[in-house]
Order: sequence, then C-alpha cells, then structure tokens
Amino acid sequence: MPKIFISPRPVSQKYQAKIHVTLRPSVLDPAGVAVKSGLEQLGHSVDSVRIGKYIELSLDAPDAETARTQVDAMCDRLLANPVIENYAIEISQ
Amino acid sequence: MPKIFISPRPVSQKYQAKIHVTLRPSVLDPAGVAVKSGLEQLGHSVDSVRIGKYIELSLDAPDAETARTQVDAMCDRLLANPVIENYAIEISQ
Repeated sequence: MPKIFISPRPVSQKYQAKIHVTLRPSVLDPAGVAVKSGLEQLGHSVDSVRIGKYIELSLDAPDAETARTQVDAMCDRLLANPVIENYAIEISQ
Repeated sequence: MPKIFISPRPVSQKYQAKIHVTLRPSVLDPAGVAVKSGLEQLGHSVDSVRIGKYIELSLDAPDAETARTQVDAMCDRLLANPVIENYAIEISQ
C-alpha cells in the first residue's frame, strides 16, 4: 500500500498591531496649536501639544515577523504619509 | 540675631503625558471601516481596524500625581468625549 505524505499546512495566527502615526518634529501641527490654545482658555497651562493617530488592527499571519512586514507595507501605502509622518508598530498576539 | 526661616519654594518639574483616546468598543467607527475597505482594495487582508487619537503634551507640575490629575481634567473637559470615548494616560519625566 503506498504511503501518503501530507505536507504541513501553514498555520496562520491572529496578530494585533498597534500603530502610532505622528507628525515629524519639523512639521507644524496646527491641530496641536489649536488644542494648546483651547486648554489655556480653560485655565490649563501646557508647554506643547502634538496630535497623532493611533490605529489598532488585527490580521492573520503565519508569524510575527510576517505580520510586521505586512503592517509596515500598509503604513507606507495608506496609513501614514512618510513625507511628513513617522510611524511606530507594535505587534502582539 | 534673629533666625530667618525660608519656606521651601515648590519645585515644579517638566512631565510628558502620552494620551490614547479610543472609541468605546460599542461605538461604530466609520473611519476604521473606510480604512479597512481601502486596505482590502490594496490587497491587504485585515480583520478589523479602529482609529483613535494619540496626543503628546508636556506640562509643569510639582509631582507626577498632580500631573496625572491635571491631564485627567484636560481629557474630561477637552481632549476626549467621555460619552463615546475612552482615554488612557501615561506620565513620564
């Protein structure tokens, strides 16, 4: 009777990505300036305010390294504008 | 000769606050749905996308506990909408 070999199916796991998109330090942040002024009108004293985006997404990937590569491509193509923004990615399970 | 007592002047220090403002899980996130659809059109497969705000501010306070109380008040009054949003505060020096 012939032996049957079953190739292992790649198991994909669910990963959570937390992405911080922030304006580069040299780029003016008008929203931050407006919020600083609003806080001061409310009686709070602050030195500086910078406003960025915080994106949480979940995706399937075979391993954490692949998940990071995929999220990196998403940031470059859609989630961030690399000309004026920096991004930081945290991957967890 | 009379002794002179000098009362200690409160020393205020500079603190950094990192604030994450996210929509409550029960609240629909139309921006997240739009970004998910955009990522899928680019060929990326994601399960869910939620978009929040990330605010960095610096302020002077006598200690970390006071800084946290001040930032908490700022979130309640201006930075977040407590009806539909949650916020998390990290204080560092």
